[in-house]
This record gives sequence, structure tokens and C-alpha cells, in this order.
Amino acid sequence: MPVTSDTGLDQFRKSIDNLDAALIHLLAERFRLTKQVGQHKAERGLPASDPEREQRQVARLRAMALAAELDPEFAERFIRFVIEEVIRHHERLKQAAAE
Amino acid sequence: MPVTSDTGLDQFRKSIDNLDAALIHLLAERFRLTKQVGQHKAERGLPASDPEREQRQVARLRAMALAAELDPEFAERFIRFVIEEVIRHHERLKQAAAE
Repeated sequence: MPVTSDTGLDQFRKSIDNLDAALIHLLAERFRLTKQVGQHKAERGLPASDPEREQRQVARLRAMALAAELDPEFAERFIRFVIEEVIRHHERLKQAAAE
Repeated sequence: MPVTSDTGLDQFRKSIDNLDAALIHLLAERFRLTKQVGQHKAERGLPASDPEREQRQVARLRAMALAAELDPEFAERFIRFVIEEVIRHHERLKQAAAE
């Protein structure tokens, strides 16, 4: 194996790359599901966003982050970032269904 | 099992909640690793950010997103969102090491 200038950093980066691949694939699957939710909502004329559900999601993930020693503020910003994207998709579907 | 008003939506939401739990735990693990990277960099006086590495990460994850039918623009915004947080952490560590 060739000796790199900073093998320690390289090893960390390989693990980070593996985690990122997992994150991207889980996000892909999450959007597959929310796409179905969007169609389901559009067909029934349900609103694109559901603030009560969002509050429960945020509270649950903040608690989960704390237990896993992840900054709960970051966890909240992350889930809000994802939910905003989902709502944008739902609104587009709703508009398409209404046309 | 009680019949809810919208069982289809409930089933989707349970799957989404499971994926979110997985996402939060992977992010927790990712920050455990980047914390070690930050210490490693601070000890060696290496810069907190590495734009070339970031470019490679963005390109790799965009390609991965495309293959998994996730919007590559979203994938890029996601990884930049995570990297920004990591750099903030690294800068704090660097400052602490310099004090």
C-alpha cells in the first residue's frame, strides 16, 4: 500500500465517504416515499404541509439527536431543510393535479 | 388495530420516521468522525476547510444521487449544508488549540 502524506486523514475520509453514500441513498428513499405521500395528498385535496406533524417530527429527532450526542439544533435545521424541500414538491404536485 | 382516518398516510409516515431515525444516527456518526478530523487538523495546523476535497465530494454525491433518482441539486445543497457545519466546528477547534 502506498504511504500517503497523511494516512490518518485518509482513513477518516474513507469512512466519511461511506456514511455520505448511505445518507444520499436514505434521502433518495425518503423522497420516493414523500413523492407517494404528495400524490396521496393531491388526490384527496389535503394540504401540502402539516405543521402539527412537523412539530412532532422535530421534537422526536431533537431527542434522538441528544441521545446520540448530535447537536439537537443541527438536527432540527436538518429536518426543516428536508421538510421544506418536500413541501415544495407537494405544492408542485398539488398545482399539477389542479390544472 | 384501530382504523385511522387515513391509514395509507399513516403507513408512509411510519416508514419516513424510520428513515429519519437512520439519517439522524448516520449524521451523529459522521460528526463523531469529523470531530476527530478537526482535532487531527488542529494538532497539525492544517486549514479547517479543503475546497478540492469538497469539490470531489460534491461531484461524487451528485452522481450517486442521479443514479438513485434523487435530485442532484438537492444532494449538493445537502452536502454543502453538512460541510458548512463541519467547517464551523473545525474553526472552533482550531481557535481553541491556538488559545
